[in-house]
Amino acid sequence: MSKTYYIGTFIHSLTLTTLEIVEHGIICVSNGIIRSIQRMGEDYSESDSTLPPSAFLQKLGHDNNNAQQLTIRIIPKNHFLFPGLIDTHIHASQYPNLGIFGKTTLLEWLNKYTFPLEASLTDPAKAKRVYRQCVQRSLRNGTTTAAYYATQSARSTNILTDVLIDLGQRGFVGRCAMDSDLQPKWYRDESPKAAKDDTSACVGYCKEADQSGRVRGIITPRFAPSCSRDTLSNLGRLLADGEQDGLLCQTHISENKNEVELVKQLFPECSSYAHVYDVHNLLTPRTVLAHAIHLTEDEIALIKSRECGVSHCPTSNMALGSGSLWVRHLLDEGVKVGLGTDVSGGYDVNVLEAARMACLVSRGVAEGGKGERSKISVEEALWLATRGGAEVLGLGGKVGGLEVGMVWDVILVGADEVPVDQDGEEAEKMLNGVHHDHDGKQTKIGGKVDFFGWETWEEKLAKWLFSGDDRNIRAVWVGGELVCRK
Amino acid sequence: MSKTYYIGTFIHSLTLTTLEIVEHGIICVSNGIIRSIQRMGEDYSESDSTLPPSAFLQKLGHDNNNAQQLTIRIIPKNHFLFPGLIDTHIHASQYPNLGIFGKTTLLEWLNKYTFPLEASLTDPAKAKRVYRQCVQRSLRNGTTTAAYYATQSARSTNILTDVLIDLGQRGFVGRCAMDSDLQPKWYRDESPKAAKDDTSACVGYCKEADQSGRVRGIITPRFAPSCSRDTLSNLGRLLADGEQDGLLCQTHISENKNEVELVKQLFPECSSYAHVYDVHNLLTPRTVLAHAIHLTEDEIALIKSRECGVSHCPTSNMALGSGSLWVRHLLDEGVKVGLGTDVSGGYDVNVLEAARMACLVSRGVAEGGKGERSKISVEEALWLATRGGAEVLGLGGKVGGLEVGMVWDVILVGADEVPVDQDGEEAEKMLNGVHHDHDGKQTKIGGKVDFFGWETWEEKLAKWLFSGDDRNIRAVWVGGELVCRK
Repeated sequence: MSKTYYIGTFIHSLTLTTLEIVEHGIICVSNGIIRSIQRMGEDYSESDSTLPPSAFLQKLGHDNNNAQQLTIRIIPKNHFLFPGLIDTHIHASQYPNLGIFGKTTLLEWLNKYTFPLEASLTDPAKAKRVYRQCVQRSLRNGTTTAAYYATQSARSTNILTDVLIDLGQRGFVGRCAMDSDLQPKWYRDESPKAAKDDTSACVGYCKEADQSGRVRGIITPRFAPSCSRDTLSNLGRLLADGEQDGLLCQTHISENKNEVELVKQLFPECSSYAHVYDVHNLLTPRTVLAHAIHLTEDEIALIKSRECGVSHCPTSNMALGSGSLWVRHLLDEGVKVGLGTDVSGGYDVNVLEAARMACLVSRGVAEGGKGERSKISVEEALWLATRGGAEVLGLGGKVGGLEVGMVWDVILVGADEVPVDQDGEEAEKMLNGVHHDHDGKQTKIGGKVDFFGWETWEEKLAKWLFSGDDRNIRAVWVGGELVCRK
Repeated sequence: MSKTYYIGTFIHSLTLTTLEIVEHGIICVSNGIIRSIQRMGEDYSESDSTLPPSAFLQKLGHDNNNAQQLTIRIIPKNHFLFPGLIDTHIHASQYPNLGIFGKTTLLEWLNKYTFPLEASLTDPAKAKRVYRQCVQRSLRNGTTTAAYYATQSARSTNILTDVLIDLGQRGFVGRCAMDSDLQPKWYRDESPKAAKDDTSACVGYCKEADQSGRVRGIITPRFAPSCSRDTLSNLGRLLADGEQDGLLCQTHISENKNEVELVKQLFPECSSYAHVYDVHNLLTPRTVLAHAIHLTEDEIALIKSRECGVSHCPTSNMALGSGSLWVRHLLDEGVKVGLGTDVSGGYDVNVLEAARMACLVSRGVAEGGKGERSKISVEEALWLATRGGAEVLGLGGKVGGLEVGMVWDVILVGADEVPVDQDGEEAEKMLNGVHHDHDGKQTKIGGKVDFFGWETWEEKLAKWLFSGDDRNIRAVWVGGELVCRK
């Protein structure tokens, strides 16, 4: 059995408010699983790693089984390993509309920009082009797991499944069930039966295409106003049938005040938006609810009692003027919360942008009267982007942290130092993001994050959170496999 | 006299709400000034440009004076010329703290993060390193004019002046006058006299060092709580003395509610924050007021009557939880408004980030009860980033637009198309941002903006605004001089 030893700095969340920063660590991975983690003292020097691998590891007290294949990977200076980011809500089919939303709010936006684009993806070549670009961009931003919405078309949805399998991202692929009059005639399910059958078919397609379980189908009623009562009930039954398999469900809730009003009109028999889903058995520990901004206290209690997760999508909420989620309150109430980019309501495929927006929006919430405690810290934002997302997607304990037994869904994050000699060639190289030799090794540099060398690791993390982009993600592994390297 | 002809697409603001998009244009520049602009019909083809330059221009009806040196520059597909971005408020001295602000608000943030860093820039080597990196990053993001705060130290401030002259950015350099007890003893002016003399010295230094007037000094009382009454009066006199020279003044106003309260306590003789500046003759048509969030209607009327400009800094306002400026109201009242990055209260040196935040924050303001009209559109955000900023800095009619007689402070903006064949080498190249041959010409690609080829120019602009970063700025000219090319 081959083993890889990663030697250098690693960082991950221990709790909502605590990060563990291990400057000198050694993590052993085999078969995509973390086998051991060693935390070395300050006196330890990575320069020992110039010894032959076997001698090096022996010196560190590791068994040197000669029959094993050993790989040693040294993490460069100003770089660190971090759990892969988790995007709990993204519409791959809307990717080409990034940044295009005008002054619309949710319901107008759906009709004006979203439905026409999604409907056009029945063209398989177009679907493949759009999905590949979206997933590539997502991976390159360090997202190792994502919960995707595709389109209403089963065929187009299965293309997204193929793309995910091909590119190696862990993910959930949902066909949008949508059979109500809210949608135009040219973009909706023909009947509750068709909505159910096509959903089953897409879930089945994933199961067959990827027996590893890395890419899985997910029950996806688009949102209550999109679905007939029959469809909601049918999907609730599919979800119950899939309990054994850990089948998940995703939908939207209470994103926009007009939407909440619309749900009231459409479902007068229900006491609340959450109640609509609940009567159709769609609120379960395996349910991901996007947005959840305008919930009443009763709805929060219901969601909590059903153990649903919430996908917080602050980038999108700002762009569509949906409102500001009071995240602290949900966390205090014990609701699971993760982050979603919500492309293309959100204008960035990067979970880090959602994380920084979560911080910024929470400041507005605090200033708006909810008090100082409402502010989300850098540590908390990074927790939401990793552990929080994992819990929401039923992957807690498997991904989102760096612990023995967890899967190696990890990113290598890095930035470079501003040269001291600003007139020199190094300064130009750094700005241009070219390769250079760093301690005799090839390092990819570039990006907006500028370290000056005097920062603490906590400050470096803050810089990464607020200035980082895809350029700072230098490598991405999913299930131990290197799926992106720059 | 040498002439350069730029042939291709150009875009700029005509009014607050209108952009002119000229797909086939020819702009002639000499000595850094726009000499002529031609708008060609749809039938025109850039392929004519393969003719020898003189024949090509003759065909287009331009004089072909053989004695002239001609340069022809063809703008590639999916690229366009745009006026350089204008940053009306940025603290170069705080650049290394980008992204580092914790959960603090203004007054705590100053003491905890800002003063210690600024004070440390009395070390000239450190100051040069910090300033060069900041100005380089600013230029590479397409900022052709910026109004800078340096530090309290005259020596360190003059280093910023040198850096600006060396790197070729148009700019204003302000030494922070600050002699009150608000500042720690180790970081403040010794006396009102010292505050005045050092301010004069820095303004004089610019005048001597750059006789072109591209880099100029600016009177900078840090903000009212930082200054004694004597210092405010002295600076008011310096400002009056500099009227002939068009000397500007910059300061902060009404950024944070606690700050407004503090000003009330410190200046009980004044009826408002704006009044403090007014009694010391600091409110003039040459005054730039940063933030201006919590102004009363009386203060807005006063600022309007004095023809001051406002620097809107939404990135910073979100980061420090300062509040949301109601930009529409100021515009409706006829107050000049531009955008500021406010590094490092703001976490990004990119004016485009301030522009997108202006859009997003305005949606919150609209939802918060100020109504639909409060929303800032893509067109308006781009106006604020160019024409608006120029007006605020007294450069209206000189920079910020593409008109005959205006200065060639211009950026080349570009993005690339997602390859149709996603499996091919082109896709990998594009994602990696490498050079490639595009229609036989070398083009720099990279960045987050993905064009699919079906977008209108309006949509491309929206994509650029919401996803663009420094990678989309492919060239930057100031005063006709190419100061950055990638």
